[in-house]
Amino acid sequence: MLNVLTVEETMRLIDERVKPLGRTQQAGIGEAAGRVLAEDVTGTEYVPGFDRSTVDGYAVRAKDTFGCSEALPALLTLSGEILMGQQASEKLQPGCCMAVPTGGAVPEGADAMVMVEHAEDYGDGTIGIMKPAAPGDNMIYRGDDITPGKVLLSAGLVLAPQDVGTLAAMGKVQVSVSVRPRVGILSTGDELIPADQAPQEGQIRDVNSHFLAAMFAAAGGAVHNYGIIRDEDALIGAALDRAIEENDMVLISGGSSVGLKDAACRLIEERGELLMHGISMKPGKPTILGIASGKPVFGLPGHPAAAYFSARLFAMRAFWNLCGSRQEPVKVSAVISESIGANHGRTQFTAVTLTGTPGSLTATPIRSKSGLITSISAADGFIAISRDSEGLGAGAKVEVTLFRALPY
Amino acid sequence: MLNVLTVEETMRLIDERVKPLGRTQQAGIGEAAGRVLAEDVTGTEYVPGFDRSTVDGYAVRAKDTFGCSEALPALLTLSGEILMGQQASEKLQPGCCMAVPTGGAVPEGADAMVMVEHAEDYGDGTIGIMKPAAPGDNMIYRGDDITPGKVLLSAGLVLAPQDVGTLAAMGKVQVSVSVRPRVGILSTGDELIPADQAPQEGQIRDVNSHFLAAMFAAAGGAVHNYGIIRDEDALIGAALDRAIEENDMVLISGGSSVGLKDAACRLIEERGELLMHGISMKPGKPTILGIASGKPVFGLPGHPAAAYFSARLFAMRAFWNLCGSRQEPVKVSAVISESIGANHGRTQFTAVTLTGTPGSLTATPIRSKSGLITSISAADGFIAISRDSEGLGAGAKVEVTLFRALPY
Repeated sequence: MLNVLTVEETMRLIDERVKPLGRTQQAGIGEAAGRVLAEDVTGTEYVPGFDRSTVDGYAVRAKDTFGCSEALPALLTLSGEILMGQQASEKLQPGCCMAVPTGGAVPEGADAMVMVEHAEDYGDGTIGIMKPAAPGDNMIYRGDDITPGKVLLSAGLVLAPQDVGTLAAMGKVQVSVSVRPRVGILSTGDELIPADQAPQEGQIRDVNSHFLAAMFAAAGGAVHNYGIIRDEDALIGAALDRAIEENDMVLISGGSSVGLKDAACRLIEERGELLMHGISMKPGKPTILGIASGKPVFGLPGHPAAAYFSARLFAMRAFWNLCGSRQEPVKVSAVISESIGANHGRTQFTAVTLTGTPGSLTATPIRSKSGLITSISAADGFIAISRDSEGLGAGAKVEVTLFRALPY
Repeated sequence: MLNVLTVEETMRLIDERVKPLGRTQQAGIGEAAGRVLAEDVTGTEYVPGFDRSTVDGYAVRAKDTFGCSEALPALLTLSGEILMGQQASEKLQPGCCMAVPTGGAVPEGADAMVMVEHAEDYGDGTIGIMKPAAPGDNMIYRGDDITPGKVLLSAGLVLAPQDVGTLAAMGKVQVSVSVRPRVGILSTGDELIPADQAPQEGQIRDVNSHFLAAMFAAAGGAVHNYGIIRDEDALIGAALDRAIEENDMVLISGGSSVGLKDAACRLIEERGELLMHGISMKPGKPTILGIASGKPVFGLPGHPAAAYFSARLFAMRAFWNLCGSRQEPVKVSAVISESIGANHGRTQFTAVTLTGTPGSLTATPIRSKSGLITSISAADGFIAISRDSEGLGAGAKVEVTLFRALPY
């Protein structure tokens, strides 16, 4: 008989047993965002490839401007104009300046740019500089953005738009990414009916397969939703066989009742190795984990809110492990609005709403029975109360994991 | 001559002038996640539709168990067993109990469930109850999750997986969502070359169109990337005409130099109304906004980091307005590692890295020149230093907007 594990033991078990798939593919720069980078991306050239102005103005030798002022401008000979996208045909000579637009190439010999607002064109080929420039002013040096050999993006990173920008800057228009893990999702339970049907008394619509599919697709998975499987060992076994065959990980929800949980344990054990028999958490205790054909198979609780926590905390960790990435969900600090009891021996997860502003957020627990998906929908995030806690008093500091973190 | 606006004035201007498109479409439950809900979703029935057990055990009349203990169990007659997905054929009589699995229907007449762990089956048709039950124990009442008329999800919400679960629970397998705004993206500047080409001196690869496309696609936009347009009024004008025609908003980046910015202003003005001539921020000052054919047209700076801030703060706000949604980016509280100067009269945006844990995060400014996309890639978020600030001392509390907030 396997023991019930703590939340932390379960995390460690997942990290020990669920390793990166190691399958990669090439993604074009236009579809790389959101994918997991599978290579370290290292600079291969200097970007920019030339010293570049960040203002409209005049390229100068800084020392030619020392001591100048509005009252006593430095007078420099305008010896040329750099056009956008072109290089200077000659070196800047002492006592001279050249006009350069924002983004244009700073000519050899120059070491600073003076903004056009601090200069006056006298119209006779002479420019008056009103403000001294220090070397490096208003310019980006060759290689300031990228130099050869510099590691810019590391394997395991989920590529954000700015990383796509970095790839573009260095001309890397194809990049190696992890293949999307295939996630098979099954619901069991004879009380379940498809979401588009009207329940009779005793029946309930399948909720879990829908939100699990949305969750793992949002994380970048290739999701196969097999829907509802009738609660018979032969049927569930056949569905598990197919899902294990066709996917890289499998989630089967619904084994909350003792009989169903035992059946799920037995069916997983027949196909591989049962690693875990429950987690000391609430909600989410009847979570099981096995490995079949080298693939993680999670048995999730039937109650939607319990399945939500279990999937988010554990199945999602396994998913990121398959991707070769480590993601920590976004947490914010808050104080709790009212005292909340602990659940001795079990880590308790409680949905909360947030009010206030960053740095002074208040988290208000949503008092609801386990299993209600609408209580998750109505919340902003959740807190975890550790298994050895005596509970939290009103005003205690908590970390809130956000339910709806959007990047923009 | 239009004035340069503050960040706050620009936000207000966008809110005044960029309104929801108001175009909606139906989305199936399988593709609704990430879309903006365009209707209030209200309960139409009771979910669950029956009183439901949250444990494996026995349905009882709570008062039949009062005063019982392990030493003195309450003896109840087992009058039936409820199967999963079925209703009880008869009402529970006083002095009786019925076996009910987790998720099963609690029979009429019962008002509590006793967990199987707190009961003993004597095998003679009698069950011993060892622990008194209070009414409502271990059960969810009809309508606990959803009742008719209750507003569950409000228009403007970006549907998260749990909301998809809520839709499934109520049998709403089609939902009205806002159409994805079409976002046209153009880059200008004669120094630009496509990302897959090797730059000559004075040339630089187009970065902006790539990361802007990724950013607005990630937010749910239908992006059209028109690539690089040569810096000639006739060409830019024709490209703008096409982009305005084919999209709901247009971003043209590259007008950082005075000449290019003036041209962009003139070209937008010829096609509609120029609303704004610059923003008192750094980086990002040369941001312009106009309205043409009723559609917002943003002129973004050419420097990638400046374009990034400008797009994230302003163009993204316009995007969400078109969607009929209000999104606030995720912010966390931190203290700053070192003093940082202010930029009097301009709101200053500075990229930072974060270390520590929620509640005790330290933000370290990345000292880099404006324009470097790799400095955004290397950072965790950014802080804003207000235009009337005297600067921040080491240890000052700051709000950090995250660059890489992922939901999981």
